[in-house]
Amino acid sequence: MDAIAVYDDGDSPELIDVPRPTPAAGEALVRVLRVGVDGTDHEVIAGEHGVSPAEDDYLVLGHEAVGVVEDPNGTEFTEGELVVPMVRRPPGPDNEYFERGEADMAPTGQYHERGIVGAHGYMSEYFTSPAEYLVSIPESVAEYGFLVEPVSITEKALEHAIASRSAFEWTPESSLVLGNGSLGLLTLAMLGSRTERTYCLGRRDRPDPTIDIIESLGATYIDSRQTPVSSVSDRYEPMDLVYEATGHAPHAFETVEALAPNGVGALLGVPGTHEFEIDGGALHEELVLHNKALVGTVNSGRTHFERAVETLQSLPEWLLDDLVTDVVGVDAFERAFSDDDHTIKTAVEF
Amino acid sequence: MDAIAVYDDGDSPELIDVPRPTPAAGEALVRVLRVGVDGTDHEVIAGEHGVSPAEDDYLVLGHEAVGVVEDPNGTEFTEGELVVPMVRRPPGPDNEYFERGEADMAPTGQYHERGIVGAHGYMSEYFTSPAEYLVSIPESVAEYGFLVEPVSITEKALEHAIASRSAFEWTPESSLVLGNGSLGLLTLAMLGSRTERTYCLGRRDRPDPTIDIIESLGATYIDSRQTPVSSVSDRYEPMDLVYEATGHAPHAFETVEALAPNGVGALLGVPGTHEFEIDGGALHEELVLHNKALVGTVNSGRTHFERAVETLQSLPEWLLDDLVTDVVGVDAFERAFSDDDHTIKTAVEF
Repeated sequence: MDAIAVYDDGDSPELIDVPRPTPAAGEALVRVLRVGVDGTDHEVIAGEHGVSPAEDDYLVLGHEAVGVVEDPNGTEFTEGELVVPMVRRPPGPDNEYFERGEADMAPTGQYHERGIVGAHGYMSEYFTSPAEYLVSIPESVAEYGFLVEPVSITEKALEHAIASRSAFEWTPESSLVLGNGSLGLLTLAMLGSRTERTYCLGRRDRPDPTIDIIESLGATYIDSRQTPVSSVSDRYEPMDLVYEATGHAPHAFETVEALAPNGVGALLGVPGTHEFEIDGGALHEELVLHNKALVGTVNSGRTHFERAVETLQSLPEWLLDDLVTDVVGVDAFERAFSDDDHTIKTAVEF
Repeated sequence: MDAIAVYDDGDSPELIDVPRPTPAAGEALVRVLRVGVDGTDHEVIAGEHGVSPAEDDYLVLGHEAVGVVEDPNGTEFTEGELVVPMVRRPPGPDNEYFERGEADMAPTGQYHERGIVGAHGYMSEYFTSPAEYLVSIPESVAEYGFLVEPVSITEKALEHAIASRSAFEWTPESSLVLGNGSLGLLTLAMLGSRTERTYCLGRRDRPDPTIDIIESLGATYIDSRQTPVSSVSDRYEPMDLVYEATGHAPHAFETVEALAPNGVGALLGVPGTHEFEIDGGALHEELVLHNKALVGTVNSGRTHFERAVETLQSLPEWLLDDLVTDVVGVDAFERAFSDDDHTIKTAVEF
């Protein structure tokens, strides 16, 4: 069957032929409909992140998938049921995090991530998965079902950020998303129902499709070239919640300055080594005297996927249409990996 | 009446004579028994922190007090009842934080702190207080009742730290206290019932009374001159919870490295400007990939004071006896402000 993979010694995705998988006991066979592309895929392709399965010298890409059950193989699913697969899998038996349904809390080395670390992804005509890692979705979100995974990432991040503020009365009114990529824009839309005023930071010139989406959502666009994160509080307003989705490390620390008293910054970027000077004393003091928190989160668990299915149904149709700028067939798969100013979110359709 | 104060143009505490206060409606008159001295008092004396009341050129010191109600003045208290006063007061009417009992969450400018910012402290023969800022304590903790306030600081910090981990299953087994001052040692004792293995970091040579207390509590002493915070994880073990009570800003950032996956660092120090270089990218990535959190907290609310009264009753008598190295009368008050290697915690007795 067709699959899109990157070889360990390659630097771009290739269309390859691999055997169609056979479901083991407890696994269903899923026919892939669409697989989204995100920043992690680009990092995997560039060799900055990710590991191929031990037995292969290539990695089938893709971790944001939607498919249809082709063979339930005795699982709880029915033939034709729409499903979204979760990303993490246990690398061996007796994994406490997976056993209690919190794979997203497993530390490095205690998980594989399909399409990223140690296990093939979903960018192929079929995949198999244990039933416990498949989430059923309704027909109404089939078209954009590949967005369930990124939305679930934000469901988890917001859950953890809100939990960190649960020891006192906290009613966030303002929120700021750092980054106007597809995850940032989805998050901005999700925050629109949680905070009265939303802001999104980027570094694009108008006219720009992401700025159009930001403003159509009723949010304020902040150009980081004119207003650095550390000045947002003065120039606009202090933010009760900041969602960092850039992976630009200085932003994680400037977030402390952007926050309102008692606010929380949810960190999601994975920047790697980046040395710089900070006024660590002032940041430390500000965290303490104004009861601020920084919460890092990664991946997402089943409850986040289930909530994401609900959330996706509540997002406006125009947003999803504008956000997904290209859905390409396998024959034109290269286009899904282009990364220009007109591209927001792409997917490959099988 | 006698009071111990620092003048705006002075640099050491002085015994002064001030009028005995008269309770207003809703206030009780409290006769002071003992008032503890802590690092904040030393900062106030050194002029690094604190503001005198607008109408005076001096500040009566002390925010850790225990007293006895001399005149209930129509409040819920009875004559002879033992009380501990809370620290913050509203600087004006209509303060939402005070109205909902969360004065500790009020931002700068929206509170006075008795003995620290904008209001006289408790280091005098008598003070008055609205009944709502007094917490009743049993006779059994009268002697060390001035420790209720510092213990309440940790009650709040642990509450917020634990809340930040409440979105998943978190069972902390190891904890590390940065700083072997009196607050650090009290916290170490409190963590002994919450985590199986406790550690305390300092920079003292043996023999040392704080190291003796650390080891009597069954904790492990870590000498920061041999093992910096960033190496604790490798040398000892990764910590599920780190409690920062040093005010040394680099420690706040090194805490990220000391934490185990899914761990939380509670920050309490107030260092002021301190610039240094960090590998912000590595710290940012570590926060994210291992779901770590940093939570700053300051001050404490009524529930924390009430919990602290319970906690204080549960701490071993030997600990309090060893921790409180000196209780001096007013005539020898200067001794309560000495700060040598034999001094852990002192109090002035009226």
